[in-house]
Amino acid sequence: MKLILLGSGNLATHLSVALQQSGHEVLQVFSRTKASSSTLAHKLNVPYTVDIKSVRNDADVYIYAVSDDAISELVKHDFGQQAIHIHTAGSVGMEVFEAKKLNYGVLYPLQSFSINKTVDFKEIPIFIEGNNPEVERVLMDLAQTISQQVYKLDSEKRLQMHIAAVFVSNFVNYLYSIGKQIVNSADLPFAVLHPLIEETAQKIKTLSPYDAQTGPARRMDSAVIAKHLDMLKDNPSQETLYRHITQMIMDEYLHQS
Amino acid sequence: MKLILLGSGNLATHLSVALQQSGHEVLQVFSRTKASSSTLAHKLNVPYTVDIKSVRNDADVYIYAVSDDAISELVKHDFGQQAIHIHTAGSVGMEVFEAKKLNYGVLYPLQSFSINKTVDFKEIPIFIEGNNPEVERVLMDLAQTISQQVYKLDSEKRLQMHIAAVFVSNFVNYLYSIGKQIVNSADLPFAVLHPLIEETAQKIKTLSPYDAQTGPARRMDSAVIAKHLDMLKDNPSQETLYRHITQMIMDEYLHQS
Repeated sequence: MKLILLGSGNLATHLSVALQQSGHEVLQVFSRTKASSSTLAHKLNVPYTVDIKSVRNDADVYIYAVSDDAISELVKHDFGQQAIHIHTAGSVGMEVFEAKKLNYGVLYPLQSFSINKTVDFKEIPIFIEGNNPEVERVLMDLAQTISQQVYKLDSEKRLQMHIAAVFVSNFVNYLYSIGKQIVNSADLPFAVLHPLIEETAQKIKTLSPYDAQTGPARRMDSAVIAKHLDMLKDNPSQETLYRHITQMIMDEYLHQS
Repeated sequence: MKLILLGSGNLATHLSVALQQSGHEVLQVFSRTKASSSTLAHKLNVPYTVDIKSVRNDADVYIYAVSDDAISELVKHDFGQQAIHIHTAGSVGMEVFEAKKLNYGVLYPLQSFSINKTVDFKEIPIFIEGNNPEVERVLMDLAQTISQQVYKLDSEKRLQMHIAAVFVSNFVNYLYSIGKQIVNSADLPFAVLHPLIEETAQKIKTLSPYDAQTGPARRMDSAVIAKHLDMLKDNPSQETLYRHITQMIMDEYLHQS
């Protein structure tokens, strides 16, 4: 298919590279930022533009891989009236295109992309949605050329997926940050936590997180919990967080054990 | 060295197997629970006892790999008066042995052990502490026979390590549980989150968690945060947790960016 990329950030880069490698033709890259626009265009060996009026009209699919606010801004322009217009955002409904486009949808890859770290798209789940069956068929085909895990999912459930991703990725990363602060304050390198972080992430592939749960809260070990809370008392927000998650774990296993 | 294992749980099992494989002699296993005691003894091909009075007196090191409460209970018995007595707990001070033993200390491996999942001890950090330099030398040697990462650490810093472990392992696992609940409620399998979980855990080996932080809180994206909170309003404790971590992330990047 002939594609035009609107956006040149991490997601736009990884997605367009994967699509091009799978045989699709990227016609053009558009982004208001010249530096990132030209970098991506160079990587794909295609032209770029920073002028929205110069976006070509002959693509099959326009991919809006931009911030949530920028989607509704770009939708107002009228390139590609017969084409399919899709965004890639977890928490923006498909209806952002409704007033201005005939054919539209969403292609949401569930992964956290960093610019310099290649990812294997084959294993990345992609959630698609279209405003009619023909669009959904095209998006399903498009997504399946790069990923083995493609699901049709409506906007409300996609929002739920995004929330789940925030918990298991953004919030988990923040807990890693807290761990780093604590071990550094004990004059140890963050690397001492790497094996534990790795094992915790691996374990849930063979054991449900419910069964994998360990620690003082799971054991209702109030003596250890009290020692930890006492140690955290100089950091009220960490103390509150410790107290809250501990309570959630205790409630869960109290009611179900 | 000649060792006696007090305890037969996950930690006792993995630790004693690793020590035996490194050439140490496990003389005996003691545990009040016959089933697990005999299972471990069978695995090591050594005798076991469920009677504390039958614990032998001729070991060099007694390893108390039992619950925190059980440590102070077992300390009262008087086997091995000249030997070194060590526990393996993150949040119990070394002084639990003080009144009753001459030579004592701690050997704390930082990992989450599951009974049926083998772990490579070489990569597991071990924190040791002894009540005199000779004990510390022996424990350093003992720990280094199984791990390449052995650190001397006092009881207060070990408690900090345990708190860090609770955040990056027990609490992280609980966030995985929340993620599973949310994707299941969207009629999707938990496996759709595995690639994201894996990538999040891998990323912090090459990028600090501070630099790896992404997501709506990091971007101060209040529109998305509001949508997520609205979606979570039927689950007040998840909503509170989402709100609290989001605030912590926003505070951190507001002050430091």
